[in-house]
Amino acid sequence: MRILVVNPNTTQSMTRTIETAAKAVASATTDVVAVTSSMGPVSIEGYYDEVFAIPGLLKEIAAGEKAGAQAAIIACFDDTGLDAARALATIPVIGICEAAVATASFIAQRFTVVTTMERSRLPLEHLVHRYGMSSRAKVRAADIPVLSLEDPTSDALPRLHAEIAAAITQDRAEAIILGCAGMADLAAELSHKFGVPVIDGVSAAVKHAETLITLGLKTAKTGAYAAPISKPYIGEMSVFSPDRIMAG
Amino acid sequence: MRILVVNPNTTQSMTRTIETAAKAVASATTDVVAVTSSMGPVSIEGYYDEVFAIPGLLKEIAAGEKAGAQAAIIACFDDTGLDAARALATIPVIGICEAAVATASFIAQRFTVVTTMERSRLPLEHLVHRYGMSSRAKVRAADIPVLSLEDPTSDALPRLHAEIAAAITQDRAEAIILGCAGMADLAAELSHKFGVPVIDGVSAAVKHAETLITLGLKTAKTGAYAAPISKPYIGEMSVFSPDRIMAG
Amino acid sequence: MRILVVNPNTTQSMTRTIETAAKAVASATTDVVAVTSSMGPVSIEGYYDEVFAIPGLLKEIAAGEKAGAQAAIIACFDDTGLDAARALATIPVIGICEAAVATASFIAQRFTVVTTMERSRLPLEHLVHRYGMSSRAKVRAADIPVLSLEDPTSDALPRLHAEIAAAITQDRAEAIILGCAGMADLAAELSHKFGVPVIDGVSAAVKHAETLITLGLKTAKTGAYAAPISKPYIGEMSVFSPDRIMAG
Amino acid sequence: MRILVVNPNTTQSMTRTIETAAKAVASATTDVVAVTSSMGPVSIEGYYDEVFAIPGLLKEIAAGEKAGAQAAIIACFDDTGLDAARALATIPVIGICEAAVATASFIAQRFTVVTTMERSRLPLEHLVHRYGMSSRAKVRAADIPVLSLEDPTSDALPRLHAEIAAAITQDRAEAIILGCAGMADLAAELSHKFGVPVIDGVSAAVKHAETLITLGLKTAKTGAYAAPISKPYIGEMSVFSPDRIMAG
Amino acid sequence: MRILVVNPNTTQSMTRTIETAAKAVASATTDVVAVTSSMGPVSIEGYYDEVFAIPGLLKEIAAGEKAGAQAAIIACFDDTGLDAARALATIPVIGICEAAVATASFIAQRFTVVTTMERSRLPLEHLVHRYGMSSRAKVRAADIPVLSLEDPTSDALPRLHAEIAAAITQDRAEAIILGCAGMADLAAELSHKFGVPVIDGVSAAVKHAETLITLGLKTAKTGAYAAPISKPYIGEMSVFSPDRIMAG
Amino acid sequence: MRILVVNPNTTQSMTRTIETAAKAVASATTDVVAVTSSMGPVSIEGYYDEVFAIPGLLKEIAAGEKAGAQAAIIACFDDTGLDAARALATIPVIGICEAAVATASFIAQRFTVVTTMERSRLPLEHLVHRYGMSSRAKVRAADIPVLSLEDPTSDALPRLHAEIAAAITQDRAEAIILGCAGMADLAAELSHKFGVPVIDGVSAAVKHAETLITLGLKTAKTGAYAAPISKPYIGEMSVFSPDRIMAG
Repeated sequence: MRILVVNPNTTQSMTRTIETAAKAVASATTDVVAVTSSMGPVSIEGYYDEVFAIPGLLKEIAAGEKAGAQAAIIACFDDTGLDAARALATIPVIGICEAAVATASFIAQRFTVVTTMERSRLPLEHLVHRYGMSSRAKVRAADIPVLSLEDPTSDALPRLHAEIAAAITQDRAEAIILGCAGMADLAAELSHKFGVPVIDGVSAAVKHAETLITLGLKTAKTGAYAAPISKPYIGEMSVFSPDRIMAG
Repeated sequence: MRILVVNPNTTQSMTRTIETAAKAVASATTDVVAVTSSMGPVSIEGYYDEVFAIPGLLKEIAAGEKAGAQAAIIACFDDTGLDAARALATIPVIGICEAAVATASFIAQRFTVVTTMERSRLPLEHLVHRYGMSSRAKVRAADIPVLSLEDPTSDALPRLHAEIAAAITQDRAEAIILGCAGMADLAAELSHKFGVPVIDGVSAAVKHAETLITLGLKTAKTGAYAAPISKPYIGEMSVFSPDRIMAG
Repeated sequence: MRILVVNPNTTQSMTRTIETAAKAVASATTDVVAVTSSMGPVSIEGYYDEVFAIPGLLKEIAAGEKAGAQAAIIACFDDTGLDAARALATIPVIGICEAAVATASFIAQRFTVVTTMERSRLPLEHLVHRYGMSSRAKVRAADIPVLSLEDPTSDALPRLHAEIAAAITQDRAEAIILGCAGMADLAAELSHKFGVPVIDGVSAAVKHAETLITLGLKTAKTGAYAAPISKPYIGEMSVFSPDRIMAG
Repeated sequence: MRILVVNPNTTQSMTRTIETAAKAVASATTDVVAVTSSMGPVSIEGYYDEVFAIPGLLKEIAAGEKAGAQAAIIACFDDTGLDAARALATIPVIGICEAAVATASFIAQRFTVVTTMERSRLPLEHLVHRYGMSSRAKVRAADIPVLSLEDPTSDALPRLHAEIAAAITQDRAEAIILGCAGMADLAAELSHKFGVPVIDGVSAAVKHAETLITLGLKTAKTGAYAAPISKPYIGEMSVFSPDRIMAG
Repeated sequence: MRILVVNPNTTQSMTRTIETAAKAVASATTDVVAVTSSMGPVSIEGYYDEVFAIPGLLKEIAAGEKAGAQAAIIACFDDTGLDAARALATIPVIGICEAAVATASFIAQRFTVVTTMERSRLPLEHLVHRYGMSSRAKVRAADIPVLSLEDPTSDALPRLHAEIAAAITQDRAEAIILGCAGMADLAAELSHKFGVPVIDGVSAAVKHAETLITLGLKTAKTGAYAAPISKPYIGEMSVFSPDRIMAG
Repeated sequence: MRILVVNPNTTQSMTRTIETAAKAVASATTDVVAVTSSMGPVSIEGYYDEVFAIPGLLKEIAAGEKAGAQAAIIACFDDTGLDAARALATIPVIGICEAAVATASFIAQRFTVVTTMERSRLPLEHLVHRYGMSSRAKVRAADIPVLSLEDPTSDALPRLHAEIAAAITQDRAEAIILGCAGMADLAAELSHKFGVPVIDGVSAAVKHAETLITLGLKTAKTGAYAAPISKPYIGEMSVFSPDRIMAG
């Protein structure tokens, strides 16, 4: 099995964290291909960054499918561009937020997503609602920039710890979801520290992708995920027209 | 008052329909500036097209705000890019779907959105849900390409009529919302034909924009609509970094 | 355009506050006619007062429509009698709560209504739910009598300030809605003081009324807002029978 | 035990139907006092009629409590004036819609309310939603005037039969609720005819009123049902001020 | 009337508390038969205990119906086995949680269930949601073992008091529901102490059972409560096959 | 990895169908152990059968965990006994309904569960609601006995086909979930026949179980899934007391 993992921000060091987490859980027969988007913001913090992360993401997904990937993972917790990716690709596509949320639902009745920036809290609440878990899951923000997770001199980790502690005490969270792909390396350690299951979306998504491949399931194409219609795209966006992106 | 109306698809003839509808209802003291996005798909039909309509849209909104617009309208019924536009702009931004839905809620308890493509039905149901009206509003698709609305030889109009009739009979819709900016010129005629209020989102949005300007209300910036953070954007997307888009 | 604004409580000084707020935002071509109900409670504080405010309100709306008003506004934040008024009138009718809530939804994802009496909190929560915003809006009461807003010696203002501060801190409200028509003169000052958008329902309703008039939209009459059926009304209520109230 | 049953419309023949149904199920030790409102519409069909049925209803409830009633029932399926009555009275007050819905919830997972006028359908859907049963109950209208139920020459009964049949077949209703006090005499016969439980709200309310009396439970007065505040009522409504209505 | 009250745990002293509460409110003509399940856990604390309380409960209900009971009550606040009991019995069956919740809904807009064990909190939240009251009711746990309610030397009572006080202050509960059959003797005293209505599910259920008997209403059998299908049951469970349990 | 799959009905031929489906998708390194419950109904059709399937199921899960299983699957689409199993076991437990629903949510926006008996329709609607998908998924029943699926002379298959066709046409289902463990062998053939993804819960659950094992995730034990409390169980149920079932 070949699974494409796209980091839709353009920071390669974060891709390495993601790749390590993905490979650690992949089956022996699974080939994980982790790529960094070649265009867009260096981190995705809020609605505006999301917009400009999607073109590069979709380009990687189209290229990955062409190169033989059987499933694709969007390794940003906003599930950036998930709907468009599902429309574009014929292979299944999984977001790490939805992967984490589905996984949490199998092991806990109440859980909390702890994310980075306050500005991402409401967008993640919308996602959690869309995935049907708004009555079971809360979202908290530790108020830390995404890239500070890679900076050992920052106070990102203590802030993250404090927010997880608050989730357990105040939300009565039975499990914690790490709300950023850049936290993919922290799950085991945090689970040990806090004594509750801690779920990383990247590794969850890898396993769900293997599941879909093994079950032979692909995105349904008879509804809102129908393939893009061939049509002209104008100006700077013309290279992304359905025909050209699929031509590669 | 100066209101910017952006057609986020790149079809100028549709912009003209939109502009006419907008100007017909604007106050005498309102200056409506209708622009066509300079990049992206010629029509927005589904999730994929949406992605590539947003960069051009945001560019126009940034430019429009710089040029003195006091409010902006996104003239596509998917409310394409609305969240990102609200984060980017300091002036208020209104989507024509939310404008139409809010307006309908003042005059009817049950109403139906009639849109073009079947693939847009579920995305619009998501919007209607987000705007709090999922228990009051249904969405139907007449199964017509967006640009066929401009083609007098197509069967777009009879199909639209049939779907409106079904909405009134089967959904017991008390009012109809036209679910595409390209239908902006049809509201009066359809209301007369079917004997129920028919709402066009473009004209509704113009009036709501005037309302916000007059009331001195702008997008709240303390939550998810905080201004984009200054950061590098890489590759083809570098021209859209917050700093550069705001520099114009 | 001629817009009728009815204060459904019988306190004329409050009508003056309302009228001032309404006229301040009306278009140059709009004639705002503010009237005080001639019968009923001097303030509307809870379910019981509401009942006896409605007959006088409906009488004014019927008279106002006869006198040429093209839209009517109910200037009490409980949206007292809104459904009955919509059934009675052929002109559109807007409540100030629904007007404020719709306006807030255009500029903020989370907002809080701050009202007067604790006993009004749950009724307003019901309204907010009905207007589809229960997941986005909270309701708080400052625990102040309605008419104390007009008494400079009362502690109404500091209590209101405290509750707004709590809404911003504890609810993370991005915008505030003033939950009483008697607060219509405070929006600008409070917005300045607290640094978030503050919305007054009276002025919002005036603009929405102008919108409906300009768009030529009237209450749908094919559903629950069908005109009252001609029938005998007995005893003290006989003067309010549909035939007699419409005869004036 | 003494239970007051108020018919809030002014048609005495309907009060007799209601009284017969109420007495048929009351305990041997219960004294049912059925009264007809002395003012207001002869039938309650839609939002407008409701408004003018409430003053007379409240007057009867105040008088009844004074005369020793231990609980009051509002015998109109719109639960007309229920909130105001609960605020006014210290004795518990029950609406026949809520009584019927609670009863149905004990014996069926899915049930349908069949009411008279189409214009009452949405208001009853709101009630059913408020009583927490919107996912379990549907509302249908047989499109018959309320008073036609008393006219043996009308086609009210066959229309009612047809709608019940449709509820069982199309909604898969496991039980039927009769959505009008004027149908109180039909439950047994319809249950026999259609082979499903058929619930009349009047008789259900009588039993629930006995329940509250026996359990010593009264309306909670610490929230929205706090007693009306003593204050002036102006003009024609002055006789209904809290002080005067409680003085009788 | 003959009403069967089954204590589905096997602690006879708790049955006596339940029986006393039930008889205190039953009509003079009602014969309350309180029985203790002959098999299963001595107290029901969480999902696992529930499973093994149901066989004994169902056996008592089948036997009770055979012996002439006209309605049955499940006297455990988890409404343990309610759905299966409704499928098995032809007489109506009422759970004490649903009885208490329906009763509370007649007298208060907001109320709180105070139960024993923290592990029962989420299951009760599910029940409250199913009964349609999740927006009106909260659930709190006093963190006390069920059987400690019978031990005068335990700190059960002060803990219960503290939780009720918190419900009133923090949840603004207007009424309290006692969330355990073992609290059935405390309602009057707690209502007096805290000045709000306090509802015991056992006594509420007795009255609702009398209501259903008097109204001649039985469980609808055309949906999910259809009678169990005759079929072999294997091994230790063979004595519970539908045929054998109904044979007694 | 060792995964226990328990068929909670006592029909061994169905266990073989389940086992085949499970083994077909398990990883090479996974040992699937499929067992048939030793006690209870031969098929689970409705609430009553469910009750008596759970003891045998829990016994197998306790035994399986003791024997080294790292995850357990409940192979009945009602997710029979899932909550109790999660409380009992320390290994993760997955129901095939929740597994199928989570899987469907990754590939389609709207999907329909097609189950066997009409009496199972509402219980499955409750499950789907609990899993957060009530706005995305419908449930249909083909009205066929469970064991008829194993009888080639029955009309089970054509009825199933008809219901799937109706789901696609009338519900606009983009994917189908097979709502019975006994259908586990039909997914591929039905997907081919109807041209939409068809999901079998057994195979989905096997993959999700592997996911949880690989990720090192176990049921959260700090909330409603806390381990059963040691206590006496009386009579026929005494062999199932927490201590004795865990002793084996």
